[in-house]
Amino acid sequence: MVAFGYEFRKKYFPLIRKDVVPINHGSFGVTPSPIIERQKQLIDEEEKYSDEFYFITCHEEYIKQLKELGSYLGIDYRNLALVTNATTAVNAVLRSIPWDFSKDKILIHSATYQACENTVRFLSDYFKLQYDVVELPYPFEDDEVLNIFEEKLSTGEYKLCLFDMITSMPGITFPYLGLISLCHKYDVWSLVDGAHAVGQVDLSFLDKLKPDFMTSNLHKWLFVPKSCAMFYVNPKHHDLIQTFPISWSYGTRPIESPSTLEENEHNENLFVNKFSFVGTVTYSQMLSVSEALKFRSEICGGEENIRKYQYNLQRDAIAKIKNVFGPESELLQNSTNSLTPPGLFNMSLPLDEKYTPVLRLLQNDHRYFKLFRSKCDRKMIAESKVPCRFLVLNGKFWFRFSVNLYNEVDDYIIGAESVKSVMEHFLDTELQSIKLKG
Amino acid sequence: MVAFGYEFRKKYFPLIRKDVVPINHGSFGVTPSPIIERQKQLIDEEEKYSDEFYFITCHEEYIKQLKELGSYLGIDYRNLALVTNATTAVNAVLRSIPWDFSKDKILIHSATYQACENTVRFLSDYFKLQYDVVELPYPFEDDEVLNIFEEKLSTGEYKLCLFDMITSMPGITFPYLGLISLCHKYDVWSLVDGAHAVGQVDLSFLDKLKPDFMTSNLHKWLFVPKSCAMFYVNPKHHDLIQTFPISWSYGTRPIESPSTLEENEHNENLFVNKFSFVGTVTYSQMLSVSEALKFRSEICGGEENIRKYQYNLQRDAIAKIKNVFGPESELLQNSTNSLTPPGLFNMSLPLDEKYTPVLRLLQNDHRYFKLFRSKCDRKMIAESKVPCRFLVLNGKFWFRFSVNLYNEVDDYIIGAESVKSVMEHFLDTELQSIKLKG
Repeated sequence: MVAFGYEFRKKYFPLIRKDVVPINHGSFGVTPSPIIERQKQLIDEEEKYSDEFYFITCHEEYIKQLKELGSYLGIDYRNLALVTNATTAVNAVLRSIPWDFSKDKILIHSATYQACENTVRFLSDYFKLQYDVVELPYPFEDDEVLNIFEEKLSTGEYKLCLFDMITSMPGITFPYLGLISLCHKYDVWSLVDGAHAVGQVDLSFLDKLKPDFMTSNLHKWLFVPKSCAMFYVNPKHHDLIQTFPISWSYGTRPIESPSTLEENEHNENLFVNKFSFVGTVTYSQMLSVSEALKFRSEICGGEENIRKYQYNLQRDAIAKIKNVFGPESELLQNSTNSLTPPGLFNMSLPLDEKYTPVLRLLQNDHRYFKLFRSKCDRKMIAESKVPCRFLVLNGKFWFRFSVNLYNEVDDYIIGAESVKSVMEHFLDTELQSIKLKG
Repeated sequence: MVAFGYEFRKKYFPLIRKDVVPINHGSFGVTPSPIIERQKQLIDEEEKYSDEFYFITCHEEYIKQLKELGSYLGIDYRNLALVTNATTAVNAVLRSIPWDFSKDKILIHSATYQACENTVRFLSDYFKLQYDVVELPYPFEDDEVLNIFEEKLSTGEYKLCLFDMITSMPGITFPYLGLISLCHKYDVWSLVDGAHAVGQVDLSFLDKLKPDFMTSNLHKWLFVPKSCAMFYVNPKHHDLIQTFPISWSYGTRPIESPSTLEENEHNENLFVNKFSFVGTVTYSQMLSVSEALKFRSEICGGEENIRKYQYNLQRDAIAKIKNVFGPESELLQNSTNSLTPPGLFNMSLPLDEKYTPVLRLLQNDHRYFKLFRSKCDRKMIAESKVPCRFLVLNGKFWFRFSVNLYNEVDDYIIGAESVKSVMEHFLDTELQSIKLKG
């Protein structure tokens, strides 16, 4: 077995450019080359004889992927679908529900993924669906979050609550198990955005806790090609939830069949059948799930082995980043250490007091922050080749680092030095500009 | 230059299986190998340095594709977006409009593409949006269709009218120019489903006639990899129409910018910017548009040359199919010969009178027809390897044939013989079964 780290990168991620320090797996994911090869083979398959592929093979292969995924994750495949990405699944839910726009209300939180929050805003702007936003305190204790949510959910005002398993920015774990239970307790539908979940946390709770809806990208941490997500729907909603877009399968009922295949093959499962064909798209990513699972078990030695490497490297990386950022640098963590998943952690960059005026602007003026961030992003990405996402929280800069099997601790030393230098460069420029204006 | 036909297939479509008679391009399209190679290169590009690709390169490359496509089609690229497929664009329109569900009404016709009709049905089932269906008479004169639509549109009942440029089944041309004008006349929004249009008909009318919305798949007749469609939106709706799914760009206004890029680069165009990034998906198909246009102009000699080959081959194929189907076999055509686009035509298969009871059942019982069709489809696709779509219309079987640059007339002789034999086999079986039951 090839050791994780640079040897592993060389062998299985040969496409990653040599001049790049890849410490931002969380944003888009990177796919091992054997799985990319499988994806390309499948693209060829689609071309060889499209009628057979789309009318016959694809359905059979789709179900095979679902069964293997269900078995790998320890959940019933009949509650699963494969969709384009987590945002698509969230849209499928929020836009399949026949809302009563005159009274229905949604609850979300302040770190909701922007695309998902935008979907809620869209429903509000266009159709007057109401929503509230829970403000999250950082770094939060699990109980603190549960209490804040319970206070809202117990009012009986909400039909649905959208929350994360692991938020994107900052990259931290949410008390999702408790939140699912709270939703059940107060009869609120739970829509669980687990965009970063598969490949980082155990999902076998799904069939036990039975949230209403859950989705997780498979292209981020499970190594499926871009882009693919799993979409879990509680059996009681299989009839309600429709594909996104609506396609040929709309109106599929347990006793009916898609027009192009034998009827008796299609009564097995309503939800699986409804989502198995959503028109002409490439299914090459979805049908590579099996290859990704094989890679993770056979080449990587399974989930436990993967997480062990990530947690060990994370621990070492934190120490090294502190050396660079300075002794006052902190890990975003709570008293029970429940905030960091294996692949993501957030570190603060302590700043000289002279930058306080800039920091204040960044914290209070979202437009100013977005412009500042876009300048830093472009320099980090195009010049330094060290991509790293950041935000301002509690008056501090926080950088989100990703940990994967192709990383070694040197990535974080180089990475931390680079982001620190980019940040100080732009802070100096902004400070200068404020002084000139002031 | 390689001659069109089998030599062309061998050189540019080497993936098409040798045992298949590919006379059904219309369903999924087939992509020439140089364009598939470009797609695969782009998949690699996405992996090499995802942050640079998604935050910087992708936006620039997307605009480049739009500009080239606009220039190739003779239309302003600023009214165009690239989306997954035509159904997605139709969904984007129908589900971006803030309907007044208490009174708004849609008009569609009886040959509306199933996935699009389903989207309308979904809006009706879930939100009580009203719709009417115009019954089409076959084979229709253009004026006949315009009159039927005018009668409905002139009532003032409709907010939007969804119609095709070329219907899928049967594959015939609609009087879309007249219909767009009628919609303008009666102040009804036109949603033009041109799924089969690009690569078959001239689209330069778009900037002159300015329908409200139009979409066309690029993976069917333009040789872009699966799947990609262009989406035209009249400038007056650029603010209204949102991406599908809603993504990061929701709320993009002419004066605002996506968070991750320089502000001043993003004021050029609202619609282009809104659709340029819709989250983590592979953009490898969309960014292959340029390669497809190069293939069509440099390798195929341009649109006129392509259509000339298609029309000539269509003419020869019709004669040969008549030889096989029998002298009473007809082309689905009207008095002005306006029904057949270059790549699609429909021929009737005359049947012995003994099959009348089966035919009657097929025409009157949609469920029975679907079951019958699925049996025929499976035999045609999996056994005969001659895929061919069919329907029953005016008491006759009609088969839809596709014509493309990799076809020669022999395909249609073998094809017609094969579908005739499959059809007669299943008609005999059904007849037997009816007699036994009766």
